[in-house]
Amino acid sequence: MTESDDKNARHAKRMARKKAVIDEAIARADQEKGLLLVLTGNGKGKSSSAFGMAARALGHGMKVGVAQFIKGRSDTGEEAFFRQHPNIEWHVLGEGFTWDTQDRERDVQKAREGWEIAKRMLTDPSFNLVILDELTYTMNYGYLDADTVLADIAARPVMQHVVVTGRAASQGLIDAADTVTELMDVKHAWRAGIKAQPGIDL
Amino acid sequence: MTESDDKNARHAKRMARKKAVIDEAIARADQEKGLLLVLTGNGKGKSSSAFGMAARALGHGMKVGVAQFIKGRSDTGEEAFFRQHPNIEWHVLGEGFTWDTQDRERDVQKAREGWEIAKRMLTDPSFNLVILDELTYTMNYGYLDADTVLADIAARPVMQHVVVTGRAASQGLIDAADTVTELMDVKHAWRAGIKAQPGIDL
Repeated sequence: MTESDDKNARHAKRMARKKAVIDEAIARADQEKGLLLVLTGNGKGKSSSAFGMAARALGHGMKVGVAQFIKGRSDTGEEAFFRQHPNIEWHVLGEGFTWDTQDRERDVQKAREGWEIAKRMLTDPSFNLVILDELTYTMNYGYLDADTVLADIAARPVMQHVVVTGRAASQGLIDAADTVTELMDVKHAWRAGIKAQPGIDL
Repeated sequence: MTESDDKNARHAKRMARKKAVIDEAIARADQEKGLLLVLTGNGKGKSSSAFGMAARALGHGMKVGVAQFIKGRSDTGEEAFFRQHPNIEWHVLGEGFTWDTQDRERDVQKAREGWEIAKRMLTDPSFNLVILDELTYTMNYGYLDADTVLADIAARPVMQHVVVTGRAASQGLIDAADTVTELMDVKHAWRAGIKAQPGIDL
């Protein structure tokens, strides 16, 4: 047996053991239900990740609803791209970050009107996936009542998936979620003086 | 002045100051170049985030190349969805995680063949965005020479963006990157016994 053969044999044995462990975990995870996913933290990629899931869902023939709170980035690439698709409903509900609008009452009013639209999707079982993009800000600033939001999400159709994005997800939202990822900002091109780039940031 | 007027006035003032700071940072960030983004960590959403950026780029009329290393999930939603698009080139290069194939030599050979395809996209300026999905595993297991990979990425066309995903990105890759996000697994439905779901995990 050559050294290389030996290395390969040990690799195969180790991987067979690993596969057995993973297969067992897969067999144990046998429940199906609509998930609540939360993508939070200061790192780049929260909304992108939600939109990647939208692509996944559309690829499975599912119907997707998107509600963008706070940001009113009406000319972004993802919106231009997805809006063409017949199986997605896309709502831009906010007018910009609160430091752009500088009008709290208007922000509150917009958030409440926005939630009515989100709630319609959260009560319609024809939506397989509902994305509530940048929702955390409306909860954290008190534009929406956090308990009402959580109750409306909890009352959704049993197989509907919901993805919530935004910084600083509240403990209540984290407790309610099935899956939570915190995106940590390890490094950002912005701090090196590089401007927001189409296809990456926009 | 009512209490509510006062609250709104203070809010407007605070937000005006915040806007000035942000506007100044935007003005300072004036460089444009192709970015290297790394999405790493154990949390769910790394590949989804990369595919969300693919959607963004396509929405801007850009051309996108995708190379999926390691995972051979040929029936996933994102692939079904994006493959229909004329402006994307999609390559599935691996045959499955190493614990599925259990054949190190074959994994190494596949990774090297895969890198030739990736390298072709990394030398073609018509690609505005190249996604190297799950690349970190091939570097960390030594299937590909890490220095060669980093040199090929560094030598790409100056305006081309590259997104690398996968757990445990090496320090060399982090040092080379413009933007790095670490996705932390705060909570995962899997551990509560919920199986992988189409539109979310597949």
